[in-house]
Amino acid sequence: MTVNSRPARPVILGQNQYGKAENRVVKITRDGATHHIKDLNVSVALSGDMDDVHYSGSNAHVLPTDTTKNTVFAKAKEHGIESAEQFGIHLARHFVTSQEVIHQARIRIEEYAWERIESSDANSRFIGADEVKHSFVRKGQETRLTQITYDGEKWEVVSGLKDLTVMNSTNSEFWGYIKDKYTTLQEAYDRILATSVAAQWRFNWTDDEQKMPHWEKSYEQVRKHMLQAFAETYSLSLQQTLYQMGSRIINNRSEIDEVRFSLPNKHHFLVDLEPFGLKNETADGAVYYAADRPYGLIEGTVLRDGCEARIPVDMTNL
Amino acid sequence: MTVNSRPARPVILGQNQYGKAENRVVKITRDGATHHIKDLNVSVALSGDMDDVHYSGSNAHVLPTDTTKNTVFAKAKEHGIESAEQFGIHLARHFVTSQEVIHQARIRIEEYAWERIESSDANSRFIGADEVKHSFVRKGQETRLTQITYDGEKWEVVSGLKDLTVMNSTNSEFWGYIKDKYTTLQEAYDRILATSVAAQWRFNWTDDEQKMPHWEKSYEQVRKHMLQAFAETYSLSLQQTLYQMGSRIINNRSEIDEVRFSLPNKHHFLVDLEPFGLKNETADGAVYYAADRPYGLIEGTVLRDGCEARIPVDMTNL
Amino acid sequence: MTVNSRPARPVILGQNQYGKAENRVVKITRDGATHHIKDLNVSVALSGDMDDVHYSGSNAHVLPTDTTKNTVFAKAKEHGIESAEQFGIHLARHFVTSQEVIHQARIRIEEYAWERIESSDANSRFIGADEVKHSFVRKGQETRLTQITYDGEKWEVVSGLKDLTVMNSTNSEFWGYIKDKYTTLQEAYDRILATSVAAQWRFNWTDDEQKMPHWEKSYEQVRKHMLQAFAETYSLSLQQTLYQMGSRIINNRSEIDEVRFSLPNKHHFLVDLEPFGLKNETADGAVYYAADRPYGLIEGTVLRDGCEARIPVDMTNL
Amino acid sequence: MTVNSRPARPVILGQNQYGKAENRVVKITRDGATHHIKDLNVSVALSGDMDDVHYSGSNAHVLPTDTTKNTVFAKAKEHGIESAEQFGIHLARHFVTSQEVIHQARIRIEEYAWERIESSDANSRFIGADEVKHSFVRKGQETRLTQITYDGEKWEVVSGLKDLTVMNSTNSEFWGYIKDKYTTLQEAYDRILATSVAAQWRFNWTDDEQKMPHWEKSYEQVRKHMLQAFAETYSLSLQQTLYQMGSRIINNRSEIDEVRFSLPNKHHFLVDLEPFGLKNETADGAVYYAADRPYGLIEGTVLRDGCEARIPVDMTNL
Repeated sequence: MTVNSRPARPVILGQNQYGKAENRVVKITRDGATHHIKDLNVSVALSGDMDDVHYSGSNAHVLPTDTTKNTVFAKAKEHGIESAEQFGIHLARHFVTSQEVIHQARIRIEEYAWERIESSDANSRFIGADEVKHSFVRKGQETRLTQITYDGEKWEVVSGLKDLTVMNSTNSEFWGYIKDKYTTLQEAYDRILATSVAAQWRFNWTDDEQKMPHWEKSYEQVRKHMLQAFAETYSLSLQQTLYQMGSRIINNRSEIDEVRFSLPNKHHFLVDLEPFGLKNETADGAVYYAADRPYGLIEGTVLRDGCEARIPVDMTNL
Repeated sequence: MTVNSRPARPVILGQNQYGKAENRVVKITRDGATHHIKDLNVSVALSGDMDDVHYSGSNAHVLPTDTTKNTVFAKAKEHGIESAEQFGIHLARHFVTSQEVIHQARIRIEEYAWERIESSDANSRFIGADEVKHSFVRKGQETRLTQITYDGEKWEVVSGLKDLTVMNSTNSEFWGYIKDKYTTLQEAYDRILATSVAAQWRFNWTDDEQKMPHWEKSYEQVRKHMLQAFAETYSLSLQQTLYQMGSRIINNRSEIDEVRFSLPNKHHFLVDLEPFGLKNETADGAVYYAADRPYGLIEGTVLRDGCEARIPVDMTNL
Repeated sequence: MTVNSRPARPVILGQNQYGKAENRVVKITRDGATHHIKDLNVSVALSGDMDDVHYSGSNAHVLPTDTTKNTVFAKAKEHGIESAEQFGIHLARHFVTSQEVIHQARIRIEEYAWERIESSDANSRFIGADEVKHSFVRKGQETRLTQITYDGEKWEVVSGLKDLTVMNSTNSEFWGYIKDKYTTLQEAYDRILATSVAAQWRFNWTDDEQKMPHWEKSYEQVRKHMLQAFAETYSLSLQQTLYQMGSRIINNRSEIDEVRFSLPNKHHFLVDLEPFGLKNETADGAVYYAADRPYGLIEGTVLRDGCEARIPVDMTNL
Repeated sequence: MTVNSRPARPVILGQNQYGKAENRVVKITRDGATHHIKDLNVSVALSGDMDDVHYSGSNAHVLPTDTTKNTVFAKAKEHGIESAEQFGIHLARHFVTSQEVIHQARIRIEEYAWERIESSDANSRFIGADEVKHSFVRKGQETRLTQITYDGEKWEVVSGLKDLTVMNSTNSEFWGYIKDKYTTLQEAYDRILATSVAAQWRFNWTDDEQKMPHWEKSYEQVRKHMLQAFAETYSLSLQQTLYQMGSRIINNRSEIDEVRFSLPNKHHFLVDLEPFGLKNETADGAVYYAADRPYGLIEGTVLRDGCEARIPVDMTNL
């Protein structure tokens, strides 16, 4: 058996972090017969004075990942879950302030939205329609995201979403591009533009002294502006649409300084029906083949002028 | 090289079918500037006089799966897509009536719902809010299903849905069950009941002479009744809820004779916070752990009295 | 609140079953320092006298799914896991014989294979190479399957596999097929044939009085015969290959009477490189595009002559 | 309709890249009757002088993603695929040197391994056993990865793998950790240690003037060292095992300066069978429950002393 003592110099430890990932915490709040639900997937990553556990296996500085899991559930009871962001802030503050060896906490949260089931009318001989306020159906559209990072002094909050699939069935063109020896693509003057939005946006709230944004309202507004910018941009390229989406957010939401997008171009190809004697013209309402792979992938950062880009390029990876 | 002639008797061919699966067809309909979208995933399975291709590799009776793919796209243009069911009927009829060697066609379709992106108000200095009628966001909730089977004489239409996740945060109990030597479960008098509904329902329309159901309206109504039955049943077991959901459909929708459900019990366990000095009482609004696996799985068929069960038990497999 | 008493006649209960699905049980056996591993995913489905729980919510006949979970883990300790099939037989027998109200048990099992990590040579200054007999890497190829059904008298064992992806880079042709008005496919005289095998085979062991098959050896042999039949068949259609695979099993394994296949034709299309002045000839070693969807899907049953087909058509669904 | 001219100053463009993702290219090489296969998933990301397309939608500097797709397939024919790394180098060089507006190319590749199907003995009345050298079964274990980045001067090659699942059924302990008010975990002196390895390692080859590593051999050796380090480390924490794995690579492979790991702790919990009167002692060979979520997640970088860490922390994200 090997004695894993501190190794000789040739190999050193770099950035490291650990914690319990994907804690599936659901909090019900009861306001009389009316219930509310918060449904989160919380991942904890802690960094600090962790050389020994890597070099020798000493766990003297290690708060077990099982404890970080327990903490997530206990804090959900202690503080409730007002928003994913606020909950992440409670958690990050706890880990950094309660253990000296932990210097930084990063909390990543996915949130799943639910909506109420509409009660029935005629059928309400069962339970009166108005009385059912505890029944929900998962919304199933985008997954909401947030990442809270805290080092004991400064906060970084990056929120976002993924898997929000959108489509414009017209008002998209693509032409005037470079043609090299491998180019066969025909120019398009009326095409479908569809993408599955993955976006992350960074707040300029960094300090407990600052007034905290209203996280829930901010999310709803950012989402609305993104969708509207997508819908209302007459697009000559997906890059242009990306910039418009980011720009709309920055211009309308003063609490946000930076947005990063990863936009797959979900190709819808016009099917060639000429061999069967059929016209398949865009203007008449056409038949498309929705392709899986490969897909164009357009990624970019949009920034408030004068602000530093801090969202890692690889964070929105598909 | 082997000569694959008709084999000696010991091994024979049983049921067989073939076709192109997962044709991702999207049809846009333009009504002036207002666009409509139908987004389907169509799988074709044909059966008939196919012994030779299995025994000897002779393709003389084989309509290529590539042709079945082309047909899906061409028929989407020729007939449009009024509903998934109606489109499947067009396809099945075509295959069975156009090729003598094909005796039966089974068309399975998944449908993905989209909703319009709400246009903006202040932002509509870009494109006027009222003018954007070609922008959509994928609804992302359940996947709608249908299966059309036609043998040249009779039709069988089984529609359904999957991945419709629902939750009651109260009005669910579980007690009074068998206790054997392996039973440790505590009885529950106020628990979360959550499931991801997979359901298939069979129509009693079987003949071109009968009046065809209104497929779109039927789907919306069945879905509504299922959701309401889920919400309004005070549940003593998921089996009871299953029966109520099926019963509500049969009682309200005369076009349907049979429903098959596969309902995973998506367990939400009350977290034990006592070690941390915290009460976690259901009545106060509790914290739950949403478990992945294992899960209870409750499956059952609900039938109009006097009708035969025809939906295969394995068709709703998870 | 509704009183869910036995409903009036119009709606009746059909086939139903319930139990705990996806119990992830891992059993380590220690033979001195040499360890062995069995890694299963076990799903229990019980049927019987279950009308009341559906109609009224009475659980008096319900063995909780939580208990079926406990039973899986306890039985893994009591009996060990000799093979997935043998383990399923222990479980099914237990449920049917220990509870009068349970008339049938169906146990479905997935098995994940592991292989040993080869120890090192020079590095074995750490732990001696020969001594490491407890380290494994998951094989990651096919998932092995079995389904055991028992009604107190007769057994049905259907074993199988899924996700075994195979390819022949030559010795496959496709021509001589029907051409209708929607046919555009070019005939092929040297193409790639690739599929992801999903297969289920039924044993003729049905009775405790019969000698039980050697389940582990049977699996290895069936798998070998399928692979070899795939490799050695000069294929004129995937249907022909399917029949050869089934036929090879029936001819070589007397314990098996029926095989059901679901074979997606994983298309590899020759890329057209002519626009770039490049030849892309099969005979020279070509470049292919591996397509996702749509795909041909070839399904069929192969039977020992005189035997009844009992594997449900929908059991191998993709 | 909006005129998307260059926007006013408040919002600027940051890092951006685009290209075709997930090109599924398969290359067969024929050496007489013996065939070889390379099966890749290639994603192209190009950066450069791309402001205009974002600000105004002008595509004058945009090589279409469709062209990058064509290029992948054409280059597979022109150069063959010696290794994923070598192929990525061909592609990156092409894009950066052939288009002035493209300043950097990043090629990401996944590779899927295949092994030959063993031919049969007795069955070789079909095709002689020795003759089948064109039949393959997908290995299905880890996915091999590489990322090539080129800016016209310097190369960065980061290779890796994901989904390599490993387990030690003993020689793992966990004790001596911090206990705070949320800690309930019991110390363990003989536990299962299992993880699914995601790793990326950076080569110190950066320049065309340097001798290029032997990419295929390097991969096999790195993989072997990682597996052996995992197997041979008597582990007091997964962090210690992580460091040992990285250290073994750095010490044995002079071509590599940095390794980044993301190691989920795939928990296997000892099942409590005491309620059923059963002992479940590790030393006797125990029964475990393999949990899904939550899981510990241990991430870290291991570096050759004196080298800079350059692999982004988010690149190995789970």
